[in-house]
Amino acid sequence: MVVKSQIKFIKSLQQKKSRIENGLFVVEGRKMVFELLNSVLVPQAIYCTNPALVLDKDLPVFNVNSREIGMMSSLKTPSEILAVFEIPKPQAVDFSDWVVVLDKLQDPGNLGTIIRLCDWFNIPSIVCSNDTVDCFNPKVLQATMGSIARVNISYRNLPGIGSNGNSEVFGTFTDGKSVYDTSLPKKGILILGNEGHGISQELRSEIDHEISIPQFGNATAESLNVASATAIFLNEIRRQPKS
Amino acid sequence: MVVKSQIKFIKSLQQKKSRIENGLFVVEGRKMVFELLNSVLVPQAIYCTNPALVLDKDLPVFNVNSREIGMMSSLKTPSEILAVFEIPKPQAVDFSDWVVVLDKLQDPGNLGTIIRLCDWFNIPSIVCSNDTVDCFNPKVLQATMGSIARVNISYRNLPGIGSNGNSEVFGTFTDGKSVYDTSLPKKGILILGNEGHGISQELRSEIDHEISIPQFGNATAESLNVASATAIFLNEIRRQPKS
Repeated sequence: MVVKSQIKFIKSLQQKKSRIENGLFVVEGRKMVFELLNSVLVPQAIYCTNPALVLDKDLPVFNVNSREIGMMSSLKTPSEILAVFEIPKPQAVDFSDWVVVLDKLQDPGNLGTIIRLCDWFNIPSIVCSNDTVDCFNPKVLQATMGSIARVNISYRNLPGIGSNGNSEVFGTFTDGKSVYDTSLPKKGILILGNEGHGISQELRSEIDHEISIPQFGNATAESLNVASATAIFLNEIRRQPKS
Repeated sequence: MVVKSQIKFIKSLQQKKSRIENGLFVVEGRKMVFELLNSVLVPQAIYCTNPALVLDKDLPVFNVNSREIGMMSSLKTPSEILAVFEIPKPQAVDFSDWVVVLDKLQDPGNLGTIIRLCDWFNIPSIVCSNDTVDCFNPKVLQATMGSIARVNISYRNLPGIGSNGNSEVFGTFTDGKSVYDTSLPKKGILILGNEGHGISQELRSEIDHEISIPQFGNATAESLNVASATAIFLNEIRRQPKS
């Protein structure tokens, strides 16, 4: 049983402004909730319609009915469980490894997929421009499949990023040098730009290497989706040279 | 000016059943429409709210108002132009190159991204299981960014695909042999499975090589998104070995 004001409050967390003011975000679905409960993240409240779901007794669990969870949910088909977690404090960016930098990324699915890729390829830190889509947006969280708890994500004004940590800066372009012919060091900064406009002009002076994924044959595809490009660049960074 | 029945008909093309019955599909937005007009695809009708848009006089153009195009559109914010094209007849699969085979892919965004990737990497043919999402679904088309006109896509029952064209069959798994250590020939069949369940049991006996993308460090990401995985596998197929 929950009161109306609580439902309204949880619904408000679909908005970035309310998430920031309250330092809280919402995840939905059994897989995501359990994965985050097993992470370093701190749950503030868990709403559940299924009394058979086994949850730790110390957790702040509220039993609700499907009408109530439906009113809280951002999904067309609400799940049996929804949880509110505290937004973790971003940790210092780890410049001793590769850092993925996202400049004005707009699409929540792309950001979620990139977070999942960084988790897979063990990239510790993502740095986003302040105008990149919020990583605690429900659509981003859905695409991360739980990886949100394992990658350190921070937001800042990007200009000046190149002077951090003594790393070489690699910017991704459609007309740069082939990534296959580029020597990729053990650490570096990889900048990916906006879906339509690429990397901002103001960042270009900080870029040491403009790199690209070669296009093959007579194909006339204009560009790769930014999440597909990230998959390929991170694979190139981590793979061993073929013998 | 269009009549109600015309609007209703175009709206019906959002459904696979109507698309198949009529052999027609719909694209929206200036970029997509112009790109397909410049392709081999045949336009059946073009609806446009903007008289300033320059279209070939021989094209079947109907001027409509924004209320009318809004009623035809599948988008929340309809564009100024919408076009109906004939569904092209699938051509024979080109087994002399790599063929991408999709087993029960469900997500329209994933299929659209994979079509775009095949265009980029010049993969001539995609073969989908009959229960894979329809490639003329509006959400798939939006994610292809026009690549739909440049990749040959066909649907069939997949069992038996391995006996085509004398190609080796590579199935993608989370626990296969590293793709980095796998010798990839100049032609082959690359099978990617369903988002949640992977490749169907009934196809496994046709697979010559079970391959994977290695996971790095202590990351605990369960799997890569199937479109991200496709990006990496196609890159591995096309890239030259690093010197």
